[in-house]
Amino acid sequence: MTYCVGMVLEKGLVLMSDTRTNSGVDNISVFRKMFTWQVSGERIITVMTAGNLATTQAVVSQLEERMKEPGERENAILQSPTMFQVATEIGKLLRDIIAKRQNANGDRGRGKFTASIIIAGQINGMEPRLFMLYPEGNFIEASLDTPFFQIGETKYGRPIIIRGYDRQMSLEDGVKLLTVSFDSTLKANLSVGLPLDLQVIERDSFEVSHQHRMSADDPYFRSISSSWGDALKHAFHSLPDYSFKQDGQ
Amino acid sequence: MTYCVGMVLEKGLVLMSDTRTNSGVDNISVFRKMFTWQVSGERIITVMTAGNLATTQAVVSQLEERMKEPGERENAILQSPTMFQVATEIGKLLRDIIAKRQNANGDRGRGKFTASIIIAGQINGMEPRLFMLYPEGNFIEASLDTPFFQIGETKYGRPIIIRGYDRQMSLEDGVKLLTVSFDSTLKANLSVGLPLDLQVIERDSFEVSHQHRMSADDPYFRSISSSWGDALKHAFHSLPDYSFKQDGQ
Repeated sequence: MTYCVGMVLEKGLVLMSDTRTNSGVDNISVFRKMFTWQVSGERIITVMTAGNLATTQAVVSQLEERMKEPGERENAILQSPTMFQVATEIGKLLRDIIAKRQNANGDRGRGKFTASIIIAGQINGMEPRLFMLYPEGNFIEASLDTPFFQIGETKYGRPIIIRGYDRQMSLEDGVKLLTVSFDSTLKANLSVGLPLDLQVIERDSFEVSHQHRMSADDPYFRSISSSWGDALKHAFHSLPDYSFKQDGQ
Repeated sequence: MTYCVGMVLEKGLVLMSDTRTNSGVDNISVFRKMFTWQVSGERIITVMTAGNLATTQAVVSQLEERMKEPGERENAILQSPTMFQVATEIGKLLRDIIAKRQNANGDRGRGKFTASIIIAGQINGMEPRLFMLYPEGNFIEASLDTPFFQIGETKYGRPIIIRGYDRQMSLEDGVKLLTVSFDSTLKANLSVGLPLDLQVIERDSFEVSHQHRMSADDPYFRSISSSWGDALKHAFHSLPDYSFKQDGQ
């Protein structure tokens, strides 16, 4: 499994992904699931992937035209005029790769090879945008009502984002929120694993404003993981107490 | 879907279940998923059910021998010498009911009609016990390492139980913890719904020590739901802040 989150804040985009891939529980590896392309001062585009690893790697390789000689490669999404076009291109690629692999494997391939993708970025002259792509190639865009997308093992880490999100929060607080969400997920599910890739894209910077890989010995991750337990206990004890008398029994 | 949790504390058992059943999103109903049988001063046994409603209702009906005349009914689990025997009996019943229905429907029935059950209780002279039954009829028992079981839509509400559980906590705090876990789940998933059924079985009481149905306008549920949001935000802001400078960038 996988866990990736993309979040839109007033000040920019905050993205985080884990790096664990597993086929069963005895075949785990570390693979990067966050990929970035940028033209400094003009555009930045980052994708995060969940699902079949051969599929998602094929999407990234074909975007970069790695089948061609290095000198002849041309990345279509670096030419797309809008983020909407970028999402359309990647969606088409994703659907085609899945369909090809499924058809090649007939009945055995049905329902396999699927993947989901989060696309985040900004092109000069336009707003920062965030999309979630489905295996069918279609996609939805984040809005004021739904300002974040999760893919992969999404449930454990969802309640804290729902409760903690605030569009006006600082980018640093956005990182803090996602770190807590990932920590909750890691504590409950073996298929999501460290290290985590973090990326922050400040509005109108058109570049990676900050990126960092959090490993198990990362001091910030460790401090969140240990203090969140205490903070939650404190929060819990601050709640009103239940009384067995309340309903007259 | 469904959400039920059973938790063993030093002082007794705390159980909570939701009441929503749905077939699609446009066919929702309220059904009780918590059932209790007791012989005052001798034993108390409570089951909570998740999965196919016809299956779980059949289990409860057959336990109570509702196919017989009222005067001839005899509930086998009220005679079982140990909680282990109770779990074995109910497990056998569950497996047989599922198998019968699947066989009667051939290929179309495969994988349908399944259900899971949590069994909690205490028989005089023995410890309070908690079991989780699988559709295959086998079961596991809670231990010091794994002192709670969840069935149904378990993921959203799991991190807070992992973080908040303490075997020594009061039964009232156990209720508070489960209320928070259910609130997190309700906020994130439509297939789990109010009202909630709560039951507390104090150690060596051999009876229902407290039970309560929490509806949407229950003052305690409302106070937890609203103050948990604030408490979480406060906990979140008490955490160490992230700094973009930390890794020297």
